[in-house]
Amino acid sequence: MQVRTQLSSLNQSGLSRHDSDYDHLSDRLSSRGLSVEDVVSQLADFQVAIPSWALGAGGTRFGRFSFYGEPGNLEQKIADVGILHALTQTAGAVSLHIPWDTPTDYAAVRDLAREYQLVFDAINSNTFQDQPGAEHTYKHGSLSATDEGARQQAIDHNLEVIAIGEKLGSKSLTVWLADGTTFPGQRNFQKSLTQTEDSLKQIYAGLPSDWKLYIEYKPYEPNFYSTVIQDWGTSLMLANACGDRAYTLVDLGHHLPNSNIEQIVSTLMLKGKLGGFHFNDSKYGDDDLTVGSIKPYALFLIFSELVYGMRNNPQNPDLAWMIDASHNIKDPLEDLIQSLEAIQEAYAKALLVDQTKLSAAQEAHDVVLCQEILQDAYRTDVRPLVQRARLNRGGALHPLRAYRALGVRDELIRQRGKHTVATGL
Amino acid sequence: MQVRTQLSSLNQSGLSRHDSDYDHLSDRLSSRGLSVEDVVSQLADFQVAIPSWALGAGGTRFGRFSFYGEPGNLEQKIADVGILHALTQTAGAVSLHIPWDTPTDYAAVRDLAREYQLVFDAINSNTFQDQPGAEHTYKHGSLSATDEGARQQAIDHNLEVIAIGEKLGSKSLTVWLADGTTFPGQRNFQKSLTQTEDSLKQIYAGLPSDWKLYIEYKPYEPNFYSTVIQDWGTSLMLANACGDRAYTLVDLGHHLPNSNIEQIVSTLMLKGKLGGFHFNDSKYGDDDLTVGSIKPYALFLIFSELVYGMRNNPQNPDLAWMIDASHNIKDPLEDLIQSLEAIQEAYAKALLVDQTKLSAAQEAHDVVLCQEILQDAYRTDVRPLVQRARLNRGGALHPLRAYRALGVRDELIRQRGKHTVATGL
Amino acid sequence: MQVRTQLSSLNQSGLSRHDSDYDHLSDRLSSRGLSVEDVVSQLADFQVAIPSWALGAGGTRFGRFSFYGEPGNLEQKIADVGILHALTQTAGAVSLHIPWDTPTDYAAVRDLAREYQLVFDAINSNTFQDQPGAEHTYKHGSLSATDEGARQQAIDHNLEVIAIGEKLGSKSLTVWLADGTTFPGQRNFQKSLTQTEDSLKQIYAGLPSDWKLYIEYKPYEPNFYSTVIQDWGTSLMLANACGDRAYTLVDLGHHLPNSNIEQIVSTLMLKGKLGGFHFNDSKYGDDDLTVGSIKPYALFLIFSELVYGMRNNPQNPDLAWMIDASHNIKDPLEDLIQSLEAIQEAYAKALLVDQTKLSAAQEAHDVVLCQEILQDAYRTDVRPLVQRARLNRGGALHPLRAYRALGVRDELIRQRGKHTVATGL
Amino acid sequence: MQVRTQLSSLNQSGLSRHDSDYDHLSDRLSSRGLSVEDVVSQLADFQVAIPSWALGAGGTRFGRFSFYGEPGNLEQKIADVGILHALTQTAGAVSLHIPWDTPTDYAAVRDLAREYQLVFDAINSNTFQDQPGAEHTYKHGSLSATDEGARQQAIDHNLEVIAIGEKLGSKSLTVWLADGTTFPGQRNFQKSLTQTEDSLKQIYAGLPSDWKLYIEYKPYEPNFYSTVIQDWGTSLMLANACGDRAYTLVDLGHHLPNSNIEQIVSTLMLKGKLGGFHFNDSKYGDDDLTVGSIKPYALFLIFSELVYGMRNNPQNPDLAWMIDASHNIKDPLEDLIQSLEAIQEAYAKALLVDQTKLSAAQEAHDVVLCQEILQDAYRTDVRPLVQRARLNRGGALHPLRAYRALGVRDELIRQRGKHTVATGL
Repeated sequence: MQVRTQLSSLNQSGLSRHDSDYDHLSDRLSSRGLSVEDVVSQLADFQVAIPSWALGAGGTRFGRFSFYGEPGNLEQKIADVGILHALTQTAGAVSLHIPWDTPTDYAAVRDLAREYQLVFDAINSNTFQDQPGAEHTYKHGSLSATDEGARQQAIDHNLEVIAIGEKLGSKSLTVWLADGTTFPGQRNFQKSLTQTEDSLKQIYAGLPSDWKLYIEYKPYEPNFYSTVIQDWGTSLMLANACGDRAYTLVDLGHHLPNSNIEQIVSTLMLKGKLGGFHFNDSKYGDDDLTVGSIKPYALFLIFSELVYGMRNNPQNPDLAWMIDASHNIKDPLEDLIQSLEAIQEAYAKALLVDQTKLSAAQEAHDVVLCQEILQDAYRTDVRPLVQRARLNRGGALHPLRAYRALGVRDELIRQRGKHTVATGL
Repeated sequence: MQVRTQLSSLNQSGLSRHDSDYDHLSDRLSSRGLSVEDVVSQLADFQVAIPSWALGAGGTRFGRFSFYGEPGNLEQKIADVGILHALTQTAGAVSLHIPWDTPTDYAAVRDLAREYQLVFDAINSNTFQDQPGAEHTYKHGSLSATDEGARQQAIDHNLEVIAIGEKLGSKSLTVWLADGTTFPGQRNFQKSLTQTEDSLKQIYAGLPSDWKLYIEYKPYEPNFYSTVIQDWGTSLMLANACGDRAYTLVDLGHHLPNSNIEQIVSTLMLKGKLGGFHFNDSKYGDDDLTVGSIKPYALFLIFSELVYGMRNNPQNPDLAWMIDASHNIKDPLEDLIQSLEAIQEAYAKALLVDQTKLSAAQEAHDVVLCQEILQDAYRTDVRPLVQRARLNRGGALHPLRAYRALGVRDELIRQRGKHTVATGL
Repeated sequence: MQVRTQLSSLNQSGLSRHDSDYDHLSDRLSSRGLSVEDVVSQLADFQVAIPSWALGAGGTRFGRFSFYGEPGNLEQKIADVGILHALTQTAGAVSLHIPWDTPTDYAAVRDLAREYQLVFDAINSNTFQDQPGAEHTYKHGSLSATDEGARQQAIDHNLEVIAIGEKLGSKSLTVWLADGTTFPGQRNFQKSLTQTEDSLKQIYAGLPSDWKLYIEYKPYEPNFYSTVIQDWGTSLMLANACGDRAYTLVDLGHHLPNSNIEQIVSTLMLKGKLGGFHFNDSKYGDDDLTVGSIKPYALFLIFSELVYGMRNNPQNPDLAWMIDASHNIKDPLEDLIQSLEAIQEAYAKALLVDQTKLSAAQEAHDVVLCQEILQDAYRTDVRPLVQRARLNRGGALHPLRAYRALGVRDELIRQRGKHTVATGL
Repeated sequence: MQVRTQLSSLNQSGLSRHDSDYDHLSDRLSSRGLSVEDVVSQLADFQVAIPSWALGAGGTRFGRFSFYGEPGNLEQKIADVGILHALTQTAGAVSLHIPWDTPTDYAAVRDLAREYQLVFDAINSNTFQDQPGAEHTYKHGSLSATDEGARQQAIDHNLEVIAIGEKLGSKSLTVWLADGTTFPGQRNFQKSLTQTEDSLKQIYAGLPSDWKLYIEYKPYEPNFYSTVIQDWGTSLMLANACGDRAYTLVDLGHHLPNSNIEQIVSTLMLKGKLGGFHFNDSKYGDDDLTVGSIKPYALFLIFSELVYGMRNNPQNPDLAWMIDASHNIKDPLEDLIQSLEAIQEAYAKALLVDQTKLSAAQEAHDVVLCQEILQDAYRTDVRPLVQRARLNRGGALHPLRAYRALGVRDELIRQRGKHTVATGL
């Protein structure tokens, strides 16, 4: 679909309202000494990868209600991300999941992505499901397995994923290891951890010299008693064991109730070991809901630490940003538009925090003022800034309205039919 | 399989050890004035229903590792329960789930159950999945729906489930309503609740006069923001609105972290409104693990309240007991044997609690002694009592060992093959 | 302190900025068909009671860091609330806690309150601590006690609290019953509940005919195994047993992790049984933090249900609003200013929700649009509206800045000294 | 009190029952090839320190119900521990808390302890409360403070605590750092962590060469937004930064809901970094309840990992064991007797786990059998083993019964009066 070319006329009707809002806000912020243009420019530069497995309807163990017009192959998935990026100008990358989205014609896939102005971000391996025809089962573990066959198969799979990523221009591998146990006593914790460390080292050894390894953690699910890489402490320990280019990856939904995630982020950046970030939101567990739909203030606090770290922690690399949500009840593309909007909003608000004043208030133990400073930024309606950043790049003033006005989903259904099912969760 | 007939010889080898253990324990307990025979007789009478949907391998949204020899139809499921009951003498009932297990030949199904000495306990409806060919979708709710078509379809389904149950001798309907929302604002809480109350009343109106209605509750999953019947308070309110034969059903896994479930049980029995009970165990959410595998002491405390209520609350009806667990990693039949054993163990320990002494200690505010009394019962090794109850009914001394010694699973694989998949979750 | 008279000059400097912000926002909202004046007027009418026990420094079991200039008696506490009200015009009521703040000269106390334009809202009883000279201890329970002496003492105390409230013009009694157990088996759940119901009925019988009874619930603390009134279901059951003028009171911090509080609010209003509301915020338990400091979006969602109920549930009475927070680390008055601001902000945003559009989107199952509608309201910077409401009543444009500019705390320290300690927690 | 000498006659009446139970159990266990004598001997060797701050009644922020006969000084506290040890033969150490229990006459205190056969285990510092006359406040942090005065005072206090410990024969320092924040933005996470690391290094530098440093962690309370050392990952990072003799200390109550503590224990022992252990139990938060009163199976699973580590991880040092509970509602000495019993019980059960069979079942992926092996050990009534271990050392067959039969509390009240209040929480 040629979304981009139709946007300028679509945007037209809202522009005067936007200009008025932007000017009013800009005036207010500038009077505080803030460079609004810098903020807009940072927002415009911020790009988030879209995972290839999240473009169809998601579900739970109790079932799945399908959605029409789902992408039936990798090319269609890339096209979906292209639409998202045209509208939002924030989705300039795609993150592949192997084997769900193994390309067949690499050159064509690369060309297609380029056409949509997309790059390939971190590539993801899958050793939590058995693939048809696989020699070994992962039922009893993969990278942590005591069965050498299964373990070697899992290591080899990761190496193969790296090889695929190299052909596409990816520069990092994300390992989410679902291995764990469902019952006490089921496996030996120490052996599982030792095996995992050895496996990760072997994968790390196969990493091209300009690649990074991201090690994700999660307390539970699909295993309900223990998970080998259960928390950031375990992930960091493993990353340290692998080497300089191994990092911890934080997924917002992968924490026990009431966790202080922003503190984890801060600690990891201080240690130069925060590699990537998976955005979503949740109320109960790893609910994989739209970013910002449940706890937007927590997201803002996390972004405040990220912004602080990006400014003050040169020891920490640039981060890999990705949305990792499920779309059980919404049109996946609309859901992703809402997520991207929420990310930009939280980032914008974090950029408004007056770090100099905050630092002074902290030193003076003025707890009340510290809160005022954060809340002043958070309470600001930053939508005009986010819109301006999008407009400057040629995106939509109102991406969701544009998506609907353009009849994107109807068009996709016309092209793909009602009953395609996207690979993924 | 003719399990039962082979048990007496299998039991032989362990009998002298058992007799010695039983005699020693019996001697100790009798010296406290306890009637050990009464305890054994109550254990023998305790029967738990096995759900038809839990005889195959379960899984999560991340996948499922299949198990060999799964039952491929209702008859095979009944046969599986028959094996369980022959071994444990505690699984004398089966609980059907419609439409997963709709019978075709009722007479044959009834005969088959009778042959295995099984009765049909509460029957369960399913309005959380769309069935092929259904006119209306449940994507936007079923009994709570504002779409009258979907709502009527869900009500009709429940009435049809009652009709099926009547033909099999069931005397109760369990409604687990998965309806809810995944995002704030998605639906109007008050309308959803009002619609649900109206739907349940219509179902209740269609209930035969000797039937009961059990209303289950659950805080989340498959919906991740709200669930219409989120807690026991909501369930009780709805049961009261329906009438005398409507009750709350408690599923152990359906509670927020740290809930005091035994207190809920106690309150409901005091009010005469506890109807049924779903056993399982969990560490993080509705993990549906083997009963007693994670928090056996909590199970004992719950059983202590159940025993108290069964003795002191004539206003409360006999309860419907059912296991409601998933078997993601274990042989389902072995898993169920372990669950049944854990239930019997917790019940036995609760029966050992000296309620007279406990009551006196409570009146005297002797908190330390109250704990001693509970822990004295809990710390007792009651396996000889559970074994004796089983032996008295002709079951296995060691059900799991017998199951393995008899090669049950191998035989089932021979009969059914490796790749059958049981209907259910 | 004569705060009020100094405000008009203090407000002067910020007025032109405020007018510009207000006009811009008003223009934007009016273009949607919203009556901004109505919103401002509703905000101006919204009044929250300040509890007498929260004007000094709070603490934990690990200690307390005191604050200077704390009020040393009831008169000083009323003066503190008067300052708050002068600044914010939102704190027009005080909620007393007996015996911590039993008046000696009622006429003088009433006059003092009138002078500050304060009324006496719900009055609170205390049966969770032993008072010097008390005949019976509450160590083993108060309203739930099996000791008739302690129970009668607790009932009598509540009746006495009502009598005190009558002399001050209060129209409601709030009962927070801390009774519960710290260990399994410590007391009989059913007896505790039965005794509590009986006690509450006796208190209810002593309630003047124009009074209401609010029954608070809480899952744990100060008891760590069970609490007699553990959740809204128990509270509602007790309120129903007492009669028409007995209601449930919701305290935001009194819930298990991940609870959906807005749904509870909605259910209670539908049933006409939500009586009162205690504001605070929390991350881990009953942390009693500044309102809106941790989960402002949850507060907004709760307010959305409150606004919906106030418009659509005539069966539910006007609510009693109170802040119930602890001030462990901030100047209590500054903390309360921040809480009042956060309440007004959440209320303003809830008033902006386009209920007609939301209802239509809900009926159309447009989940994405439902979220957009809520978030559009939430993302709006409503501070100009809150400011305007305050200004219209003669309050401060920026209450916190005014508080500091006026040197209120310094003045209080001059008057009261450094080492007064307020009664309360 | 001369408890010990009276025990042999008190024990007499229960001995024949005990012998019979012991012989029966011993026979059963021996038939499996287990050396029962080894188990009994390991139990007898297991000694747990009693903290000096937990010998009086505890409370919450809502108040405290006092207990009669509390120890009014350090000598009386040591006497209390002496009674405990005489009865249980498991409480052979005392753990001091400075400044609550700073000795005045060291020689006398050492002599007194020796008389009761007690040693001084890890000594604890306190920088979470301001002491009268202290120059700097810890309100804004201690070891993490940006105020150099407060920070230096906290470091100096720890060095002083070491000096005190040296005079008593302690060989380790436990640092529980309560520092953290109550509101977002209150302090800079990275500065707090950096300061803390520096402070701990200074303390470590002052550690005698045969001492160890234990770094405790806790997610929240007394701070309710963040805690500097929030989890084991942070503690381990700091211990690694300090050096070889710095270790992580695990307190069972210091975890977020649903944490898998046994896995943390296992990881730390694998890395040789588990230094100490604080026993208690909890249902909601850091409830500090009697050990084993809420989740005895979890305690057993933790002990299974501890036993595994003690056998297989020579890289990990001997652990410092301590009870860290509060006694809000029970006689502190009775409460501690129950805790000690629960610890011994869990340890005994863990010693019964057939590690060889478990390891084989794990290798064979026999999840069902793994559970059977753990549950077989757990379901065994090990009280005869624990009793035998006590008897062998000259302790009481039934410590609680002996405590009551001897009228210990009455005697203490006679000696100390009703209104002494022990220093501590």
